[in-house]
Amino acid sequence: MKPVLDLAFAHAHLDSLLGAIPLTRTMQIALRDYDGDNLALAAPLEPNVNDKGCAFGGSLASLTTLAGWGLVALKLRSLGLDCEIYVQDSTIRYLAPVWGELVANARLADGESWDAFLTALNARGRGRLRIACRVPLDDGKDACTLDARFVAIRDKR
Amino acid sequence: MKPVLDLAFAHAHLDSLLGAIPLTRTMQIALRDYDGDNLALAAPLEPNVNDKGCAFGGSLASLTTLAGWGLVALKLRSLGLDCEIYVQDSTIRYLAPVWGELVANARLADGESWDAFLTALNARGRGRLRIACRVPLDDGKDACTLDARFVAIRDKR
Repeated sequence: MKPVLDLAFAHAHLDSLLGAIPLTRTMQIALRDYDGDNLALAAPLEPNVNDKGCAFGGSLASLTTLAGWGLVALKLRSLGLDCEIYVQDSTIRYLAPVWGELVANARLADGESWDAFLTALNARGRGRLRIACRVPLDDGKDACTLDARFVAIRDKR
Repeated sequence: MKPVLDLAFAHAHLDSLLGAIPLTRTMQIALRDYDGDNLALAAPLEPNVNDKGCAFGGSLASLTTLAGWGLVALKLRSLGLDCEIYVQDSTIRYLAPVWGELVANARLADGESWDAFLTALNARGRGRLRIACRVPLDDGKDACTLDARFVAIRDKR
């Protein structure tokens, strides 16, 4: 039976993981939305503030990277695949300060395909793909973008 | 009188700033070394651990970015220049897990020059430069590298 890829599915599989990292608890990172193709994580400003009163760059980097990581983790989980997932590298652009809640949206980067990723994972036990994350502002512009490359390695158990 | 660019100078100017960001306190980020050209920040593993027992990627991104930011801040402070300093963008590569203390070393990136940066800052009130950071392992290899671009804007007060 194909799993329903919704917020409840995401909670069932990501909450324990986010709770297992002390800093994500301090940052109060929480699931906001998930539909199978997009994952949104959110965090309040207060524990993530810098000395200027806006969001700390390290919090933006952590939140966006985790959103990308979570999107890959949920896709693999929905297919019943046990994998270790690592971020290999990422480029982040800080475009505007964030003065309120931090929200990071993750989706597949342009030119990437789940099918190609899964084919490589099945054939060689290892697949790579890039995820695009953004932190939107109320005016529709982005406060921050992250392009990150993840690798998944099939668990040999 | 030319300031002595040593660890005491760095403590005098960076400690209050690191303490003003809640997450850097949680991460227990502390100054490790400074000689005018290199800045090292360190943090214990325990508050920065991920679900696998090694350093959380978000902590590595935060620590390296702060080391770069601090190096620029100390250089400008040593010259008596009041500036706002922002990170514009950065690329981070995660090369190996960190199973102990996190240490980030920051220095000027290849091809960059403080003179060119300061000349631009004096002429146009704004200067940009790239800082290279690395998190070394005991075997001499890098666990992580960060190449970050910072902009400094002269305070008009």
